[in-house]
Order: sequence, then structure tokens, then C-alpha cells
Amino acid sequence: MLQAWHLPVAPFVAIRGQKMTITLWLAGDALPQRLMLRTEIDNEETPIEMTRQAQAPHPGITAWRASIDLSSGQSRRRYCFKLLWADRQQWFAPLGFSDFPPPRLEQFAVDAPDVGPDWVADQIFYQIFPDRFARSTRRSFEQESVYRHHAANRDIRRCEWHEPLTPEAGGSTFYGGDLDGINEKLPWLKRLGVTALYLNPVFVAPSVHKYDTEDYRRVDPAFGGDEALLRLRHHTRQQGMRLVLDGVFNHTGDSHRWFDRHTDSTTGACHNPASSWRDWYSFSEDGKALDWLGYPSLPKLDYRASGVVDEIYRGENSIVRHWLREPWSMDGWRLDVVHMLGEGGGAGNNLRHVAGIRQAAKETRSDAFVFGEHFGDARQWLQADAEDASMNYRGFTFPVWAFLANTDISYDPQRIDAKTCAAWMEQYRAGLSHQQQLRMFNQLNSHDTPRFISLLGKDRARLPLGVAWMFCWPGVPGIYYGDEVGVEGDMDPMCRRPFPWDQAQQDGELLAFYQQLAKLRRQSTALRRGGCQVVYAEGDILAFVRLWQRERVLVVINRGTASEITLAPSPLLANGDWQRQLGEGSMEGERLTLGAVSVTVWRSR
Amino acid sequence: MLQAWHLPVAPFVAIRGQKMTITLWLAGDALPQRLMLRTEIDNEETPIEMTRQAQAPHPGITAWRASIDLSSGQSRRRYCFKLLWADRQQWFAPLGFSDFPPPRLEQFAVDAPDVGPDWVADQIFYQIFPDRFARSTRRSFEQESVYRHHAANRDIRRCEWHEPLTPEAGGSTFYGGDLDGINEKLPWLKRLGVTALYLNPVFVAPSVHKYDTEDYRRVDPAFGGDEALLRLRHHTRQQGMRLVLDGVFNHTGDSHRWFDRHTDSTTGACHNPASSWRDWYSFSEDGKALDWLGYPSLPKLDYRASGVVDEIYRGENSIVRHWLREPWSMDGWRLDVVHMLGEGGGAGNNLRHVAGIRQAAKETRSDAFVFGEHFGDARQWLQADAEDASMNYRGFTFPVWAFLANTDISYDPQRIDAKTCAAWMEQYRAGLSHQQQLRMFNQLNSHDTPRFISLLGKDRARLPLGVAWMFCWPGVPGIYYGDEVGVEGDMDPMCRRPFPWDQAQQDGELLAFYQQLAKLRRQSTALRRGGCQVVYAEGDILAFVRLWQRERVLVVINRGTASEITLAPSPLLANGDWQRQLGEGSMEGERLTLGAVSVTVWRSR
Repeated sequence: MLQAWHLPVAPFVAIRGQKMTITLWLAGDALPQRLMLRTEIDNEETPIEMTRQAQAPHPGITAWRASIDLSSGQSRRRYCFKLLWADRQQWFAPLGFSDFPPPRLEQFAVDAPDVGPDWVADQIFYQIFPDRFARSTRRSFEQESVYRHHAANRDIRRCEWHEPLTPEAGGSTFYGGDLDGINEKLPWLKRLGVTALYLNPVFVAPSVHKYDTEDYRRVDPAFGGDEALLRLRHHTRQQGMRLVLDGVFNHTGDSHRWFDRHTDSTTGACHNPASSWRDWYSFSEDGKALDWLGYPSLPKLDYRASGVVDEIYRGENSIVRHWLREPWSMDGWRLDVVHMLGEGGGAGNNLRHVAGIRQAAKETRSDAFVFGEHFGDARQWLQADAEDASMNYRGFTFPVWAFLANTDISYDPQRIDAKTCAAWMEQYRAGLSHQQQLRMFNQLNSHDTPRFISLLGKDRARLPLGVAWMFCWPGVPGIYYGDEVGVEGDMDPMCRRPFPWDQAQQDGELLAFYQQLAKLRRQSTALRRGGCQVVYAEGDILAFVRLWQRERVLVVINRGTASEITLAPSPLLANGDWQRQLGEGSMEGERLTLGAVSVTVWRSR
Repeated sequence: MLQAWHLPVAPFVAIRGQKMTITLWLAGDALPQRLMLRTEIDNEETPIEMTRQAQAPHPGITAWRASIDLSSGQSRRRYCFKLLWADRQQWFAPLGFSDFPPPRLEQFAVDAPDVGPDWVADQIFYQIFPDRFARSTRRSFEQESVYRHHAANRDIRRCEWHEPLTPEAGGSTFYGGDLDGINEKLPWLKRLGVTALYLNPVFVAPSVHKYDTEDYRRVDPAFGGDEALLRLRHHTRQQGMRLVLDGVFNHTGDSHRWFDRHTDSTTGACHNPASSWRDWYSFSEDGKALDWLGYPSLPKLDYRASGVVDEIYRGENSIVRHWLREPWSMDGWRLDVVHMLGEGGGAGNNLRHVAGIRQAAKETRSDAFVFGEHFGDARQWLQADAEDASMNYRGFTFPVWAFLANTDISYDPQRIDAKTCAAWMEQYRAGLSHQQQLRMFNQLNSHDTPRFISLLGKDRARLPLGVAWMFCWPGVPGIYYGDEVGVEGDMDPMCRRPFPWDQAQQDGELLAFYQQLAKLRRQSTALRRGGCQVVYAEGDILAFVRLWQRERVLVVINRGTASEITLAPSPLLANGDWQRQLGEGSMEGERLTLGAVSVTVWRSR
């Protein structure tokens, strides 16, 4: 049987100056007579003959090599391998061998040069829902003790931090968290291992979630206003922490002055067909504004209007650019429901506008991180480079849920074995370049989903498996505030509980586990930058190796009973000298002994 | 075992007004408890509960139904099916069942509304290399009996039609075919069944192939000039024939006045950095023009220059628009090496410019047909709607070559069985909407490849299998001139032989076979517009059914020895009353008897 190994990283890929050298390892009885590196020049398939190397990298393994000239061509270097015998051919690509050429967008892909943002892969992100994370001590109890939210149509008393959250009136329940509260907790976050923050919306808006923007150019006073964001920017910089905002550009709130549903004024678009902002929204023939998914409070922006395009991203002082500039200097944007924005009350010309947002961001700050929210398949956007990365629900969260929690986002049962789980994650990943994979935003849950711990229910013992997976799988981990201390909660709004700062309410063991993983990741280039290969996927057990130069990290996840397994011999695992970093499993040669419901991580250098 | 059937056409899809009703058929022991139609609204996944119908469409089969509202959303309606049991789920999409959601771009997809061009699917195209198809009788022998081509650097005598073609000096060999010659052969083409012509380049250019354009706004005098094209347009219209030109917008010839390598004048870009056209091309630091694939005679246009963008497609009187307008009124463009054009001497911003070409064409003539040349995977361009369709080398020609001729485009051996062949073609097709599939340009070979008959070599008996496949597979057949009478020829220039008008040199049996298939296709909506399902693919035998309403066409291809096979019972084949249309196979129930190296076509209504 023929076997092949290649990952789009060192030592299989080496870039020196304008030359990228690519190596494939082969083993088996019937080696091919010729081997072609199938690459592309300006999207044109171009074969390059590979040369068999004299030296065997491992006993019984042959290495084949060819080089790509980087001085011209598109910077996404896609390639796969064509193996030739006297009477037949085979292809090797990320999803393995096939008898016909693999799809163009499911090949190995290295971005060379990589236009970045290069810093993302090294981060550990932390997502904060500002009203619920921390309230600054500098605020008096009286400040904003009463809120107004037109949806509630009454004065709303601010809840005290310890009051239980109820499912009612989710958008109109306020606990009073603010940006200075985050500031005060930076040392705590730093101890956790966090290096970057992603904040849910902070701009002026009537609801607690603030996805109903009223003013894109001011921070909500309830969060401390512009000054508080400046202070947060100042302090995160001092701590070397990145800061990313939530860009809600699909719709505004209906109280935004461009729309202005609730006042008698007629300048806004809602009640006045002659409003100068009328074409910034779409209206049906009977004058009803088109909204987002049936929420009348969220009228959809219409990107047919050049005013919208200029104000949101294209103009010299657009919103996208404004917050990336001094003194705000944000490090990037998470783009809310970005696949849905567009023209005519729908998603017309969506890709063009999303790409425009990214382009405006990059023009303003070349290392800005622009990633989109996609519950569904984001590959078309990523393959078009309309975003740097995306929230990785589809390629990480959902397969992990299905494998460990047996459920999907609709609470429908989903039962898959390790093989199916691996196939799902590998198929998705194969559509992205190596650098894109490293920037995917991997979360176990978010403000829009039930918490993973709650999905697990009686299978709570599987929680560490998911957590370790997030820290070790290709992509950047995104801890949703409170997960690290075991906060529970079902679907929105129950997944937005106030953070339990009372240590007695925190799961200290879980917190230590997060800290341990953060440290492991910080110390491991393979985890942050390495290639990834699934080396075992059967029944209840899934194992993968991350690889960078000589460093290997082996992660073995067992959701079932205590087991012994034998890994197939692989040169990727032949380093020897494995040191256990996490968990209780043991290793003897290729034989692994795994505890029930366990995750074990080994490392070799 | 659970089985499911769905095709994105009637009777499974029915559009009435703003409602599209979708039906899935299921059979098996463990039917799902619930069934969701997973569709999209503005790119957002949206589940719709399906209702089990009281009436069984066939014994043992249940029908499930749901409707999509067409009044909003993107016109490409993507959908698949989510089957739910108490403890698990499955998905059904064009590539069959899976335990996790299928990729967004591999789902059923119906364009509703379909912006067309709707006429394409009904055509039988014929590709003409003008110098080699026919020379008009109205021309005297003296006219253009001597040619100049700077590559040859001497006067070139026009070959007489019967002179053998040699491999030497391919671009500098002229036989004197012209557009009036095509005119004279229209009755002949009409008898063959041809309804649309695609011409290789006709604009002024020094070589015989004319991919080295010298003037995009004039037809080459050797082909009869502008007047001859007007006459051809006039006569094709009279015959109800479509006419499509070859757009070579990646590069010009080096004798184009914009570049002007060969004269002493300094207005052109080649020798004068101050030329007003200098930025229309890209130059290396040492002043060398960047060309296409190393051919210095083909300098690449640089789409960074707004002058290029305006002149080629964007401007009000751009080349793309010019020829679609009266009096020229061409029906569309085939775009040469379209994946490679772009900015900076490479393919920078390629997709944007290709989409711009299509948009300019549609603005000028809404039913223009714009399809690209792609030897490789064209799906990214098609999925972005940058083209209406593409030359289908990758999804049709190459798998058919591999299965029947055991070779690929590099003359490397490629041996695949029917199962692999089907997997290849089905995977490719799954990435396209139903309407896009119907417009794919299916050829057995072209002016850029060896002729299929020559690739077959000693397996010439398999030729009819490929021909029938081309007429029956989803997409529009494109006959390369001369194929229908058995013209042979290897790689360019040998695949560009003069058409043998002497009947003694024609394969009359093959011609009759083409005519028979053209007639069959003309009479069959299923072949022109139907869905397609592979119903058998093992070893040497591949069978598929085309389906439209109650009409079914079953095509069975056997490259091997005489065989008997049994098709799996399928409601798609349950019509009964099969009439054999072509070939010698026989059918008794699901049992088929097939001759060696044979193709048989049955039809049922």
C-alpha cells in the first residue's frame, strides 16, 4: 500500500528568498515512476517534475522535492501532487489520494507572501459581552441605575450583579457592566493567558446587546462612553493585548437618526419618503422598511445607496476606518451577520461589499484583523479573500458539539463517530490556506449559542475534551467570558449571565485547566503555527498531531470508555521522546492507553 | 436501507408564481420522523419543515414537500434535506447522504428567477477555426495567395486545401478559409443539426490562429473583413443560428499599435516608456514586457490601467460591448484564458475583471452568453457568477478521456473505472446550479487539444460512446469542426486540419450518427433541460438517466465486453414503456443486455 505525508509547513515547506521548496514523503511497494508537483501560475495549472532525494528522511521512506518560484504569480500558492506510473496516475491532496485531480479549492495552499494579519495566530482571544462581564468600581451605584429601552416601553431598573438572569425581556435587562470594568480585570485576564479581546457591540444603542446601533461613532454612555474605550485601549496596549470591535453593518437600530422610527421628526427615512437617508434603507411598495429576519427594530441598510457604502466603509472617514485610526487604534473588526448584508433589502452583491469592508480596513491599518460571523459555510468568502478568517462554527464548533454533545445548533440530535467528525473538520479545513486556518476563530460557544457546558448536560465530564480541542486545533482559541470558570446557560439570553466574580461560584479546577492549556499553547509553535494531521479517528477516539519543524504535539481525545489503541506507524510520530503535557494517558511506542472520557496531550521536540 | 430521490427539475421542483415547491421521495425501513428542507434566505441557512404527502408517488415510496418563497432572497436557491430521527440526523444533497451538513456550494441549486441566457441549453454548437473550415467560392485563387507573418519572416504561400498539414510553423500556415466560406456551408451545418456557431478569433492578427490580436475592432481581411462577418450574421439569423466570438483579452499581439514591437514608430508601449499605452502592459525593471506563458509575441494586458479596463469592457463603446451591438449583434463571447487575465502582469483581481466583462456584456445585451476557457477547475468563477458557463474540460472532456481513452491532457496515462469517472463528473457538477450545468460547453476536443478520435487510437470503436455522451450529458454539445466526419489529428497544429469537403474522405456513418443524436436531442426536453442521475457505474459500464416531467432518457455506456447488468430498482426508471432510440442493447425490466463497446439510449414518456 502506498502512503504519503505532506503538511504545508516546515519541514515539508521551506521558503528561502523567492523560492519555496516542497517535499513529499512516500512509502510503499509500488512507488510511482514520476512525481509532479501540480501548482498554479496566475491560476493556470502548471506541473513541475519532482526529484527523488538521495537521503531517506526515515527508514523506508523516500523524499521527493521541487521548488516554486515566488517572484511572480498569485500569493496563494495552491498545489497538490500527481503520481505517475507506466499505465496510471494518482493524486495526493489534503483529503488524501484520489484517482482524479482534486478540486482547485481543496489543495494544499500556502500564502507566500502572507499579507497577514500575522499576529492573529499567536493570540488567545477572550470574548466579552460588556454589560455582563464586570462593572467598574469607580462608578457609583446611582449612575445609570435606570435604563430606557423603547422595546420595554418603561423605565428599567438596573439589576444587581448577583440577581439571577431570567429568560424574559432579554434585550431589556441591564446589569451595568462597562469598559472600565474590563480595564480593572485585565490582570485577571492576563493570568488566564488572554492576549486579545473581542467585544460585543459598544456603540450607542438602546438594547443591552447593542446590535441595534443608534450611533456608530460614539461608545454607549452606559459602557462609559468614548473615554472609557480610550482608557481600555491605553491599558490593553500597555499589557500587549489586542482589541477587536463588533461591526454591525447589515442593519441599524430603528432609533438611528438615519431611520428614526420613534420621534415626530421627519428627517429620518422611516416616515419620510423624501428623507435624504430614504435610499439608505429598502422599502416595500407599501412603504414598509425591509428588516433583518423579521425584527422591525433592525432595518436593513441598502448598499445600493452610495451614501451607505461611503459612510460604512468606502469614504475617507468611514466608520470602518474611523475606529482603526488613532486615537482609537482598534486591531480589527468582527463583522456581524456579514453574509447577509447587501443591496435591495437582501444580500445583493454581498461579496463585493464584504471585500470592500476588508479592503477599507487594510488601507487604513494593514495589519487589521477582519473576520466574519458565519453560522454556515464561510468558505466562499474566505476563498475570495473577502475576510481574513471567520468565526469557525462550521469547521470547529459544530463538529465538536456533534461528537461530544450529540446536538446541533437547532437542538436536533446529531450522533457522529470520530471518523465522521474528522471527515467533517478535515473537509472544511481543506478549503482554506494554511495561514487562513491558523486565523480561524475557534469557540466552543458564544453569545448567540447555548454554552457548551450546558449542551453537555450529564456528559459534563467531556468538557475538558472540548476545551483542549479548542486550544490545540488549527485556529485561534476564543474563550467566551465565563466559560473558564464554568458558567452555564442555554440559548440567548441565558448564555449572557453576569460573570461570577465571587470565587466561591467559580470552578477553580476548570480555570486552572484553561491556564494550563494557554501556557502550553504559548510555549508551542506547533500549536500556534503548525500543520495538522488526524492520525486516528475511530468510534469514540480522535487523535491528531500538530507539527512544526521538529516539534510535534499529539492530542488524543477519548469520549468513551477506557481504551487501548495502536496508532498506525507514521514518520510524523517518529520523533520519539514524547513528554506528556496534559492528561493521564500513557504511551508505549505506538500503543496508547487512554482513560475513560479523557484528553491527553504529548509533545516531542 | 434508506433511499432518497430528488432532482432539481420537474416533477420534483415546481414553480408557480412566487412559490417554488420542492419534493423529496424516500423509501426504506427507518423513515425519518421529521424532514427539513434546508434552504437559504440571503445566504442565511433557513430550515423549513417538510410535510409527508398522503399519496405515494410509487408503491413503497413516500413523498415529502415544502415550499420556498421566491419573492425575496438571492436568485440562486440552494437547498438540501435534513432528515431527523429521535437520536440522530442525516443530510441528503446531490452527492448523496452524509452525517454532517454538505458544503454550501455542493447543494441542489435552482436559479429562480433565472437571468439566463435561457437559449443556450437548446443549442447544438459548432466550433470553427476559420482558416480551416471552408474557403468561399466567390474568392479568386489570387486573393491572399501570399501571406505575411512576422514570425516566419518571409512571404508565405497559401496552401491548397488538399495539401497535407505539417507540424512545422503551425501559426504561419494558411489555407485561406474565410467567413463567406462558412456562409456557404450553413445549409450543410443545418442538416447536421447545428444551431449555433462559435468562431475562433476573427479580428485582425498576423498568425493563422489570430490569438495575437492586432486590431480588436476589425475583422481580418483574410477572413473577408467586416463585411463578411455582417453577411455571416445576416445569414445565420435567417437560419435561426446563434453566433459567438472568441474574446482574447488576456494579451494582445505584439504588433498591436498599443504595443508595436516591430516598427520604428515610438507611439507604442514596447520601445517607449513615455507611450500613452505604456501602462496598458507590464514591464519588468529592465524594461522587458511581461508576456503570456513565455511567448514574447503575446504581451499581457495590465488591468491596473483604467484605459485597458475601459477599452476592453467598462467603457460605453468598449470592445466587449461593440460587437454585441447592432449591426454586429453577436450572441456572446467565449473568453480566452480568462482565469489568467488581470493586473500587474499576472492575474491580480482576476475575478473582479472577469465579472466586469460579463456585466458589460449583459448591460449591452441581456441574453449574451459569456463563457470562459478553463482547462482547470472553473467552479470558483461560476460560483461567483463571473461567467454564465465555461468550456467544460474539467467536468466533461477529461473524465470522458480518462474513461474511454485512458489519457489526460499531458498524455499521461489515466486509467479509471466507471465508478471513479462518475464520482469525478458528479462532484464537479454538484458545485453548479442546475441552469449553469445546462449551459456548460461540453466538447470532446477543441483547437487546443488532440482530437478525441486520435487519442482513442486502436480503441476507435469507443468513439460513438463519447459522441453520444456529449449529446446526452447535462450541458450544451460543442462539435469541433470535422469531428463529425472523422477528421484526425494530434496536438496543435495537427488538430487544425482543413475540413475534408471531398465526401470520399468523410466518415459518412459517423456523420449520420451525429445527425441522429442531434435529432434525438432536439426532440427531447429531458436531454436539453432535464436533471441527471447516474444509475449504474461499475467497471466498464456507466449509465445515467436524464429526467424532465414524465420524460426519461436512459443512456448506457459500455466500454468493455458484451455484458448483462441489472439496474437497482428506482422510481426514476419506473415509467415503463421504454423505446430504444440508439444502439443495440436490450432491456427486460431492470435487466439490460449490452453489446461490447456500445452505447444504447432508451426513452420513455
